Amino acid sequence: MKGFFITFEGTDGSGKSTQLRLLTQSLNSLGYSVTVTREPGGCRLSEQMRDIVLSAQNSELCPLSELLLYQAARAQHVTQVIRPALERGHIVICDRYTHSTEAYQGCARGLDEELVRSLNAVAAQGVLPDLTVMLLVPPELSFNRKGGADEQDRMEQAGADFHRAVYEGYCRMAQRDDSIFALDTSGLKKQQTASVILKEVLQRLKDSGKAE
Amino acid sequence: MKGFFITFEGTDGSGKSTQLRLLTQSLNSLGYSVTVTREPGGCRLSEQMRDIVLSAQNSELCPLSELLLYQAARAQHVTQVIRPALERGHIVICDRYTHSTEAYQGCARGLDEELVRSLNAVAAQGVLPDLTVMLLVPPELSFNRKGGADEQDRMEQAGADFHRAVYEGYCRMAQRDDSIFALDTSGLKKQQTASVILKEVLQRLKDSGKAE
Repeated sequence: MKGFFITFEGTDGSGKSTQLRLLTQSLNSLGYSVTVTREPGGCRLSEQMRDIVLSAQNSELCPLSELLLYQAARAQHVTQVIRPALERGHIVICDRYTHSTEAYQGCARGLDEELVRSLNAVAAQGVLPDLTVMLLVPPELSFNRKGGADEQDRMEQAGADFHRAVYEGYCRMAQRDDSIFALDTSGLKKQQTASVILKEVLQRLKDSGKAE
Repeated sequence: MKGFFITFEGTDGSGKSTQLRLLTQSLNSLGYSVTVTREPGGCRLSEQMRDIVLSAQNSELCPLSELLLYQAARAQHVTQVIRPALERGHIVICDRYTHSTEAYQGCARGLDEELVRSLNAVAAQGVLPDLTVMLLVPPELSFNRKGGADEQDRMEQAGADFHRAVYEGYCRMAQRDDSIFALDTSGLKKQQTASVILKEVLQRLKDSGKAE
């Protein structure tokens, strides 16, 4: 495909959403066509699935159903949003994607990691990130940045052990996968982080020869 | 498990729902504890997923997302309703289950049948029917029994070729699987059909030694 697919990953409160916004602004300023989207969600039906999976009212949702619901939302999102935008030559920036499922449902919920990866492959339909920007902050810090329990969704409410397992899962993925650009943002200012990310993205875009 | 798991399958308009109700009444009269449920749905969260998958408004839902959404609903339903009822020794009667997914999403939507079967196995978590009552009516007849397009859900609206493929898929399954009791109901009166089904169910219950 002509476009370039960037996913943002990281623990809650790692500055992921802010950095995604700053990168989008920079790429727009440089004249790139950018499609920004998110998971779970990103299109009408997947947002309805997001409501089910993230609502704090739905505490009885079992881990396997949660996993399958994330994948149903992904299949629709890839088909309706991500793949068409890449085919138009856009840079697609997606807030969370398959690595989130591996970290949250595999490493943290304890579902079989081979099952998680094979379902990721089914739902992604071959649409895999050219680059994953992974923002890592030790879980004690990232967990404290968000508000109290009444402001949190189902995933954010899952507790400290869960969020440590997510963090450790991300760290293992970063070690084994060259398409992941991992960055510990805990000692960096917002603009420093943005600058490091932009430099990396532009280099990878240049190397790929796509989305020019 | 102590209980006995019966699923009802069949094309729309085959008399499936009526026969399910009549069988339930007979088994209750005979003193059995019966849990009646349905797919997609059967519990609060799976009914929310049912609303997404069956709403006639959601014509953009792609076949792969549809398949994964059915499986997400199934995983929750098995965990929360079917398995607990079987563990209590109930006869569980479920309106549609894995054979529907094979017929509708595999044979009729044209998704890879091996993928459909492997996802069925994941979502069912080993909870497979002891007996499947499959009511077969040639699709021309069954399709005409339901109302006009404005009363139909997404699956019912799918057209004559689709419903023929469902019918043929069911026929193939019936030929290869001994746990399926298939019956062409088009020449039978309602009470005749009910009587044939009850006789078969009681025999299979006796043979299984379960749910006494």
